[in-house]
Amino acid sequence: MRSLTSMFVAILGAAGFAASPALADEGMWTFDQLPLQRLAADHQFTPPAGWADHLRLSSVRLALGCSGSFISAQGLVLSNHHCARGCAQGLSTPTHSLMAFGFLAATSADERKCPDIEVNQLVGITHVTDQIKAATAGRSGPAFRDAERAAITVVEKGCNTGADVRCDVVTLFHGGVYDLYKYRRYQDVRLVFIPEEAAAIFGDAVVADWPLRALDMSLVRVYDHGAPLDTSANHFTFAAAPARPGDLVFVVGNPAETERLNTVAELEEERDVLLPIHMADDSEFHGLMSETARESPELAGEVSSLVFSGELEASRSTLQHRALSNTGLLAARARQETDLRARIAADSALTARYGGAWDAIAAAVSHLRQIDERFMVLEVEPQEAGLIEEAIVLVRNAAEAAKPDSERLRFYRDSSRPALRAEVLSAAPVYPEVETRKLAWLLSRLQPHLGSADPAVIALLGNESPHDLAARLVAGTRLGDVAQRQTLLDGGEAAIAASPDPLIVYVRDRWNPLSRPLRDDYEANVAAVITANSALIDQARLAVFGAGADPDATFTPRLAYGVVRGYAHGGVAMPPQTTIGEAFALDTGRDPFRLPKSWLDAKAGLDMATPLDVAFTADIVGGNSGSPLLDRDGRLVGLVFAGNDAAEGGTFGYDDTEARAIAVTVPAIRAALAHIYHADRIVREIDGE
Amino acid sequence: MRSLTSMFVAILGAAGFAASPALADEGMWTFDQLPLQRLAADHQFTPPAGWADHLRLSSVRLALGCSGSFISAQGLVLSNHHCARGCAQGLSTPTHSLMAFGFLAATSADERKCPDIEVNQLVGITHVTDQIKAATAGRSGPAFRDAERAAITVVEKGCNTGADVRCDVVTLFHGGVYDLYKYRRYQDVRLVFIPEEAAAIFGDAVVADWPLRALDMSLVRVYDHGAPLDTSANHFTFAAAPARPGDLVFVVGNPAETERLNTVAELEEERDVLLPIHMADDSEFHGLMSETARESPELAGEVSSLVFSGELEASRSTLQHRALSNTGLLAARARQETDLRARIAADSALTARYGGAWDAIAAAVSHLRQIDERFMVLEVEPQEAGLIEEAIVLVRNAAEAAKPDSERLRFYRDSSRPALRAEVLSAAPVYPEVETRKLAWLLSRLQPHLGSADPAVIALLGNESPHDLAARLVAGTRLGDVAQRQTLLDGGEAAIAASPDPLIVYVRDRWNPLSRPLRDDYEANVAAVITANSALIDQARLAVFGAGADPDATFTPRLAYGVVRGYAHGGVAMPPQTTIGEAFALDTGRDPFRLPKSWLDAKAGLDMATPLDVAFTADIVGGNSGSPLLDRDGRLVGLVFAGNDAAEGGTFGYDDTEARAIAVTVPAIRAALAHIYHADRIVREIDGE
Repeated sequence: MRSLTSMFVAILGAAGFAASPALADEGMWTFDQLPLQRLAADHQFTPPAGWADHLRLSSVRLALGCSGSFISAQGLVLSNHHCARGCAQGLSTPTHSLMAFGFLAATSADERKCPDIEVNQLVGITHVTDQIKAATAGRSGPAFRDAERAAITVVEKGCNTGADVRCDVVTLFHGGVYDLYKYRRYQDVRLVFIPEEAAAIFGDAVVADWPLRALDMSLVRVYDHGAPLDTSANHFTFAAAPARPGDLVFVVGNPAETERLNTVAELEEERDVLLPIHMADDSEFHGLMSETARESPELAGEVSSLVFSGELEASRSTLQHRALSNTGLLAARARQETDLRARIAADSALTARYGGAWDAIAAAVSHLRQIDERFMVLEVEPQEAGLIEEAIVLVRNAAEAAKPDSERLRFYRDSSRPALRAEVLSAAPVYPEVETRKLAWLLSRLQPHLGSADPAVIALLGNESPHDLAARLVAGTRLGDVAQRQTLLDGGEAAIAASPDPLIVYVRDRWNPLSRPLRDDYEANVAAVITANSALIDQARLAVFGAGADPDATFTPRLAYGVVRGYAHGGVAMPPQTTIGEAFALDTGRDPFRLPKSWLDAKAGLDMATPLDVAFTADIVGGNSGSPLLDRDGRLVGLVFAGNDAAEGGTFGYDDTEARAIAVTVPAIRAALAHIYHADRIVREIDGE
Repeated sequence: MRSLTSMFVAILGAAGFAASPALADEGMWTFDQLPLQRLAADHQFTPPAGWADHLRLSSVRLALGCSGSFISAQGLVLSNHHCARGCAQGLSTPTHSLMAFGFLAATSADERKCPDIEVNQLVGITHVTDQIKAATAGRSGPAFRDAERAAITVVEKGCNTGADVRCDVVTLFHGGVYDLYKYRRYQDVRLVFIPEEAAAIFGDAVVADWPLRALDMSLVRVYDHGAPLDTSANHFTFAAAPARPGDLVFVVGNPAETERLNTVAELEEERDVLLPIHMADDSEFHGLMSETARESPELAGEVSSLVFSGELEASRSTLQHRALSNTGLLAARARQETDLRARIAADSALTARYGGAWDAIAAAVSHLRQIDERFMVLEVEPQEAGLIEEAIVLVRNAAEAAKPDSERLRFYRDSSRPALRAEVLSAAPVYPEVETRKLAWLLSRLQPHLGSADPAVIALLGNESPHDLAARLVAGTRLGDVAQRQTLLDGGEAAIAASPDPLIVYVRDRWNPLSRPLRDDYEANVAAVITANSALIDQARLAVFGAGADPDATFTPRLAYGVVRGYAHGGVAMPPQTTIGEAFALDTGRDPFRLPKSWLDAKAGLDMATPLDVAFTADIVGGNSGSPLLDRDGRLVGLVFAGNDAAEGGTFGYDDTEARAIAVTVPAIRAALAHIYHADRIVREIDGE
């Protein structure tokens, strides 16, 4: 299985209408365009009044890349263990690891602040398509992009009325639709409960395929003005009965990104270049970090997160690459594309309007082919390399902040200011030994990708080894100190220009001068061209096939649905659910099949037949981690935490033959809280007592 | 650059005639079919009588994957530092590392045995095509393969007259030609000189691109019946003048493997599946091992070889993948294939004979697509995973030895017995800590590639973690002991059946039952079909375009030629040669630009303008490491040790726009021996004094 945090970095971002009738239960639906006809026709389900609003308002987004839901009237949020890892590790001490021992706040006073977790609740969607399109009419290329950016900035600024509000213009259908998403933002989030990691990833849930027996859960609480948030109006109650095979179920979550209807040229670029680079670089990173974790027990706490994410990323890119290279997916896409192009070609009016879009995208992809490895190692991969990314943000912020808002890179616009500040000023601890390894990894990928004789490599490495250079920069920098980052953030261009910090100097004088023009080149000659022409293709599809499909995922709230169901893999029947008893049967006392002491102590009081995890057909991808799983009545039946291996192809298309989403069941959550962790306070709260 | 040992494991092996006029200086020519017309036409060179025999007999193959040459009358062999790494490491002690300090035998009595190095000298080529083809006439599929194997065995047995002879039937042009290569085999090989590793890989020569300043050399001596081999008749003398830009130069070496004219279906399988798997798995291995080397100084000696090979393999697969995915190579191949098929289709007789070959190969590749990841992780990757490969060889040997020779897998036939014994009974030391990591790496790749629910993965891992299982097997096995391996090798089926050794039991009862049928499936339904139909395509090319091309590389002696010449990369001019002075100018005292003390001490006595490394256009690939570089008169001007990054595409085709071979110059070798290492005894020997 793969966890569903939205960590995957894809550099081609595009979207589109379904080109052909959707497969059973395919779709990640926006709350303003729910598939009511399909639900009625396929599942004889018509939601009662208020049902959708209740689901939306009871669900939340965790800004770092997860989903969650309110499950009590006092702001209690249910999400995954792996969504609260960072928090639990930050709260660990050298002598008491929350990964090893878990955590339960005995009283509300014991609930502990998670500095990295921000909770967003979607309170409204406003259509702003006309406003944006009026601003971009008649423009193309950089002029289109600049006008679009300026118009979006105006809309977002008008909505962002305070620190407790977050407004994003969401671009759907490649600009066919612009919607303004307004969230209530909560930044005081505290850890209530997290089980031992051994229970959360039992059976090596990071890379294990279904069937799983993992309790991948956590509980945090949203505070507002120092008190638990009142969610009496909007929270989910636990269903009395578990979801059973054949039951219709719903997922509300924030799928991060799909590329369902990219052109064949774009998918080939993913298959041929981008995913293989990810596979190799993520694998190298994982190999490095897993050995570090084994060799340096004193670093294991911090490193385990990186081992976890490294393994996840490497597996994800491998499975996505397989979906594109070793299944019929790309051929099916090519047939759909050929079909649509033939229909367009048969109509001169459509040809005049849309006929050139595919070739324009192919030309942009050809341009990308000239810069792709360079763009990956200089511009994308620093995002995984720790402090250098902070330095890049600080250096760029100084330059961008001096420009008019609409001319800045998106992340440096006023509307993104809170997110930028949250990233730069995060109180998460910084471990120099780990930072050195992350940076050394980044630097060590330059030569393999660009060649040692490349002028950029010579400029960036000189005649230092990647590890020596990384060690020198990390040893000398003060960017691990939040106050120092704050000074440089607030100090702007003058502070950056005057900074003697070796990492700032390195980024300012050596790295950014190489990567920044690459970003501009990419934005203008790849991203903007693909976006504009993808929009044309979406419009062409609309003209030919009519409306009624879901847009690609954008890490915004969506509704998906499906049915609890097993499947066959390699001729072997895979069950629709697993039980607590199976976990005990598999327990060896050693990783990865190690039940913690709390489980062993509680065994006599547990019903071994209690369902633990459940598989179902809903269409989900990364970002859905922590999503509530709901029955027809909007009651909680589970906690989504993974997809199986086949589900990883979901980036490019959903096929329910083998792809399954996976959730912890509500009976297991209740049994764990009541009988394993003795969280009586929490159980009573959930039950509304 | 990439070193040129023949370590790359490609699972598709095929070959062919040039489909179109060869590019300038493309070609790796067998000694019985030298390109005399092209040399005369393109370079106004006609070799004098005896020239080719002299080159062939003065050159050698190092059986582990390198090339070399005799450079004195007393059996002195010049090859690369990286070809003698294993020997130097085996001779190192915890307190004296030959990697760190180098080695110079003060007297011949101080020359030290290299247990792993076997030297082969090609003494004759006999055409046996008619004999093999008579045996295979009218057969196809497994029957063809069995008949071919049986006939080859008969020929090889008739030639193998003793332990000092090695005979191999070499299959060229996919079976269009079978030649019997007879070698004089030398197994008493002793280390004479090796510089410090820091000088040999100065500038991180493992992954660095040209320009380089590395002294990647070593000297060993062949002994015969306890005395230095008399090579007075066949050795190279040093040229008085260095090779200069524009000079014609020759390389004699053993290029390991090319896939120059595989079909598009095969190349797409490489691009889509096989190379990405290599990229990811090799990168994970390299990440693991490089961190192990850093964290465990006590293991660094042994591990450094694996870091080296892991980096090499990861880089090689990355560059080969790039050649297939991000250059025009595959498109050019597709055009050539379409052209040839059109010519065949235009002639009904040719169509009847050859027309089905491409589709048959495509069908075999489709079959491979069903098993490729499984075949890679269960059958190919154990070759890099240490002791488990020994266990596989022992378990299979027991079963194969009981069969008639012609029915065995190739490696278990009598003709391969010496190589098998040499591998199993190698005296190379075994480090349990390193073995655990290698095996854990292998086991950890099962889940990502096959999924944890795959029956094979369940059978192989049970509910142990990869690392725990590896640690348990390595801790319990006695296979690290040569005597134990000898007992199991000689004991045959009874010994294997009775063995309680946990690694033997694991392979015998769990691994081999899964991997052996896969090997049979691959041999019968992929390899045999591709071989037979590739032969048809070769014949079709011959029928359409006529003869006169070189066969794909087969790790047998070949002649290549070219011109000393720089090139342009990314708009930057790359020089044709570098100097000793440049190495001093780049020296930082720290890896990777660290000159050893011997160089610093000798600086005053060195001419800084002495050429150090040289780039030239000859067509070489892995296996050419250690090849002599010769002038028109057959005098030594250099020692080949690398190709630049672009040369890595050589597996699939040679294009001299950027691809260059790289050699250490003879003036540098002489200067180093005389003035840095004070090897006066050796210099006098080379000079014939």
